[in-house]
Amino acid sequence: MKLQTVKHTIDTRGNTHIVDITPIVIGELEKSKLVNGNICIFIPGSTASVTTIEYEPGLLKDLPEILESIIPSGKPYHHNKTWGDNNGHSHIRAAFFGSSLNVPFQNGELMLGIWQQIVIIDFDERSRKRNFVIQLIGE
Amino acid sequence: MKLQTVKHTIDTRGNTHIVDITPIVIGELEKSKLVNGNICIFIPGSTASVTTIEYEPGLLKDLPEILESIIPSGKPYHHNKTWGDNNGHSHIRAAFFGSSLNVPFQNGELMLGIWQQIVIIDFDERSRKRNFVIQLIGE
Amino acid sequence: MKLQTVKHTIDTRGNTHIVDITPIVIGELEKSKLVNGNICIFIPGSTASVTTIEYEPGLLKDLPEILESIIPSGKPYHHNKTWGDNNGHSHIRAAFFGSSLNVPFQNGELMLGIWQQIVIIDFDERSRKRNFVIQLIGE
Repeated sequence: MKLQTVKHTIDTRGNTHIVDITPIVIGELEKSKLVNGNICIFIPGSTASVTTIEYEPGLLKDLPEILESIIPSGKPYHHNKTWGDNNGHSHIRAAFFGSSLNVPFQNGELMLGIWQQIVIIDFDERSRKRNFVIQLIGE
Repeated sequence: MKLQTVKHTIDTRGNTHIVDITPIVIGELEKSKLVNGNICIFIPGSTASVTTIEYEPGLLKDLPEILESIIPSGKPYHHNKTWGDNNGHSHIRAAFFGSSLNVPFQNGELMLGIWQQIVIIDFDERSRKRNFVIQLIGE
Repeated sequence: MKLQTVKHTIDTRGNTHIVDITPIVIGELEKSKLVNGNICIFIPGSTASVTTIEYEPGLLKDLPEILESIIPSGKPYHHNKTWGDNNGHSHIRAAFFGSSLNVPFQNGELMLGIWQQIVIIDFDERSRKRNFVIQLIGE
């Protein structure tokens, strides 16, 4: 059993910007030469999340819109008042969606569905460089 | 350390149908002869999720009902308009709940709580065969 | 590759009490002498969750408040009627947030963000002893 840990950086626009990182994850799996095992994707940071979704233009609009009704950006969050910040909603959304995802692979391929992509969602309210970790355990 | 990856299929009715897969996971753990380690349950697909819940009749009604108020099925989602689909809400719900769960086991037993079951929730709006992956890493 | 599974207990007040367990997780990582690998934190039980958040006083108030608007404690849940319980909302919230989290570590350190803590959220409506599992896989 082998272990491999890689850091990556992507550019995000914030404001619930959804970025498809599936090609990056597949690239790391291929480079590793591992055949069977598990990939953990992890977000260091408290205003972004990792999940899976069908990466298509309709849902890229639907998810931010419905989140505005569930966890609105404009509320007077205690976080904002305490720190002079404006991203209380970003923190709450990220805690909801979570910071880790585990995807098994077999015969050198991720076991994703056909219409399923691995995405990072940046809930913060500004564009930035966003780091994430890809960790492979397998053989 | 050994690795084992198994695919399973269950029948689901859709519409936030919650299926208890704990017996299937325990069955795979027993077959594997592994004693200590971790099980990753993963859903290939973008309209279903895996989580844990107390599998009892009240909550099986409560969860779909409250989801109708949080992420309603009847909204004019962009996804539906773009693809002629009717399951925009299913995709959003699945992205919220997530597609992977990791459960440790020790002395040959899952470390679940007494009232805690591993469930797949099918958010799609039709019945189907639903695949999932059980991956064990342990010794 | 080595495996290590440890159980811990914390005191929680319930009612969406958020407890920072990062020091406990770091303590187990240091004791294990493992350098590179992955930590799975798992909650046995169906009314608490594990996630990451910036552990600061504002958000500790914001998260319970917004949850009252999303998954209210006062609704006539079927779960409550069936069992004479009062914690239907606790179960639903826990199913949403999930019971497992995986955090990679490298060079003996958790790969968390600077403002990111590992927390247990106890959604139940009473104080209690709350168990959780820390499982390390690494080398």
